[in-house]
Amino acid sequence: MKKHNFFAGPSILPENTIKNTAEAVLNFAGTGLSVLEVSHRGKEFVAVMDEALALFKELLDIPSTHEVVFVGGGASLQFCMAPYNFLNKKAAYLSTGAWANKAIKEAKLFGEVVEVASSKDKNYSYIPKGWDVPSDVEYLHITTNNTIFGTEIKKDLDVKVPLIGDMSSDIFSRPVDVSKYNLIYGGAQKNLAPAGLAFAIVRKDALGNVDRPIPTYLNYQTHIENGSMFNTPPVLPVFSALETLRWIKEVGGVAKLQKINEDKAILLYNAIDNNKMFKATVDNLEDRSIMNVCFVMNDNYTELEKEFLDFAVSKGMTGIKGHRSVGGFRASIYNALPKSSVQALVDAMNEFEAKH
Amino acid sequence: MKKHNFFAGPSILPENTIKNTAEAVLNFAGTGLSVLEVSHRGKEFVAVMDEALALFKELLDIPSTHEVVFVGGGASLQFCMAPYNFLNKKAAYLSTGAWANKAIKEAKLFGEVVEVASSKDKNYSYIPKGWDVPSDVEYLHITTNNTIFGTEIKKDLDVKVPLIGDMSSDIFSRPVDVSKYNLIYGGAQKNLAPAGLAFAIVRKDALGNVDRPIPTYLNYQTHIENGSMFNTPPVLPVFSALETLRWIKEVGGVAKLQKINEDKAILLYNAIDNNKMFKATVDNLEDRSIMNVCFVMNDNYTELEKEFLDFAVSKGMTGIKGHRSVGGFRASIYNALPKSSVQALVDAMNEFEAKH
Repeated sequence: MKKHNFFAGPSILPENTIKNTAEAVLNFAGTGLSVLEVSHRGKEFVAVMDEALALFKELLDIPSTHEVVFVGGGASLQFCMAPYNFLNKKAAYLSTGAWANKAIKEAKLFGEVVEVASSKDKNYSYIPKGWDVPSDVEYLHITTNNTIFGTEIKKDLDVKVPLIGDMSSDIFSRPVDVSKYNLIYGGAQKNLAPAGLAFAIVRKDALGNVDRPIPTYLNYQTHIENGSMFNTPPVLPVFSALETLRWIKEVGGVAKLQKINEDKAILLYNAIDNNKMFKATVDNLEDRSIMNVCFVMNDNYTELEKEFLDFAVSKGMTGIKGHRSVGGFRASIYNALPKSSVQALVDAMNEFEAKH
Repeated sequence: MKKHNFFAGPSILPENTIKNTAEAVLNFAGTGLSVLEVSHRGKEFVAVMDEALALFKELLDIPSTHEVVFVGGGASLQFCMAPYNFLNKKAAYLSTGAWANKAIKEAKLFGEVVEVASSKDKNYSYIPKGWDVPSDVEYLHITTNNTIFGTEIKKDLDVKVPLIGDMSSDIFSRPVDVSKYNLIYGGAQKNLAPAGLAFAIVRKDALGNVDRPIPTYLNYQTHIENGSMFNTPPVLPVFSALETLRWIKEVGGVAKLQKINEDKAILLYNAIDNNKMFKATVDNLEDRSIMNVCFVMNDNYTELEKEFLDFAVSKGMTGIKGHRSVGGFRASIYNALPKSSVQALVDAMNEFEAKH
């Protein structure tokens, strides 16, 4: 049976990324050796790293003021690297969920943190509006897509200070105005690569403005100066990232993917809104994520949650159980998830409704 | 032609590790999904993580006072994590090469560092002896194997303070008396797994003794409490690590591997010592690494370096060019390198000698 992979991350990757990665594990670039056992300084892998960084910049139209680096440790390490490098005295954070709050926790170790707004009052089911950013903060940190709660800031905000964005789960899902950001970071394990890799898009002239010494690995400057090869990079995830970046280019780039993603999201949200048995956890259309669609059983059908989950699994759906903070269901419909998988889920929901 | 993989790292892994990793990239544990695209919280990967940690502890006979964690970022991140967690006021470091010096550089950001000895005077071609450790330091840091210079501290030192050991390139090559260490760490990309994973063996009751706040990701306690699943771990490298750990057990464990490694090292060092065209860069037998064998052309044959390199490559040798700090050649003969590859190199050296 065809599996439909709705995991929230690590999550579905393009078929070619998987196929070509498997091949490279057996024989990398004609070396007769596995990509797992070749030097990262060899010309074959250096070519992979160079092309991956170049394509990353090309696809997001990253201006020359910024540089892209790959590092290990995931977004959780970035939560402290961001303030280590950019928070000298005071920063602003927008609290839109669990990951935003983890970022806030780390920032407080480095300086004063102003929480400009929070949607905690309604279990993070909306994006707060109408707040102000103090003019004396060094940056405003936002989590553009909230994987757990299914909300998303889908446009690059207009504020009077530089932005820092955690884009772990929506990078490459839409065009981004990188010039508004001092830093965009994320774990790669949603739209880009397997787990074990993080990316950072860094505004170069914004570095070097904090008073504290920064450990070498935690300093973005280190990775910029060394072309992401300061130390041994996560070789296989970088290889897979390149395959995915090539796929994004083939599909037509991030503007095209945004249209495809919106199309998939509308199909699924419409099916939820029109099905008497389900309801979306995010009401505001503007705030609904096009990457993670959260929904629960409607009021009169809560006792059928387990039955629908089993039913969906029997139809090949994988990873649609909701996060424990929200309950119900979550369908992660990242770039690589085909519309046919969304349709299969919609069909299962409709069939389930008809059954009852 | 059969390739003989002498890369210093990332480096040769057991054949089954590569074969089974390639299979898992296509279909992981019968899930019908790639190991690159499944949730790290799914029961299949949780089983992998649990078995990998358990086998790691079993094979190194790690006492219950210590815990093993997997983290991202490599040994270069450990260079700052070690002092972040263990250096409150003063620590001692032994300077045996480039990696030891990188560790020293990071430690200086956190407290007073006493360099107990250095072999810099002879380009790190020996392990300093006869030095003392101040009694008031919190630990002595050693780099047990110096990948670049081919020296190794092959026995766990007897000193009056706890040890911290960077064992990136000799972990699992011999039994270790873990009880002497507050911390053993390393990148996994030599004897354990592909790049993108670091390990740390942490003495639990030695944590919590520094005055500074520690960012969450950089605190070993975080990873201990969360069973190395605080955040998304590097899934594929952990999978491959488990395969390698199973292989180590099948071979007979680290005591058996030590004998095999010594046997391979003696074969190669003897061939160098008995060949008029080559000489080892490390004179002292006791200091010679059983993992990285460094040698150069002998005095009257220096002009033949390039010719020998080309000759060796023509015989299938890969990765034997020496590091630029030493020159000449380096044969990394890690656990997974078969004796037949060492013999092939010895044969090439003998054939080259006969030719001239």
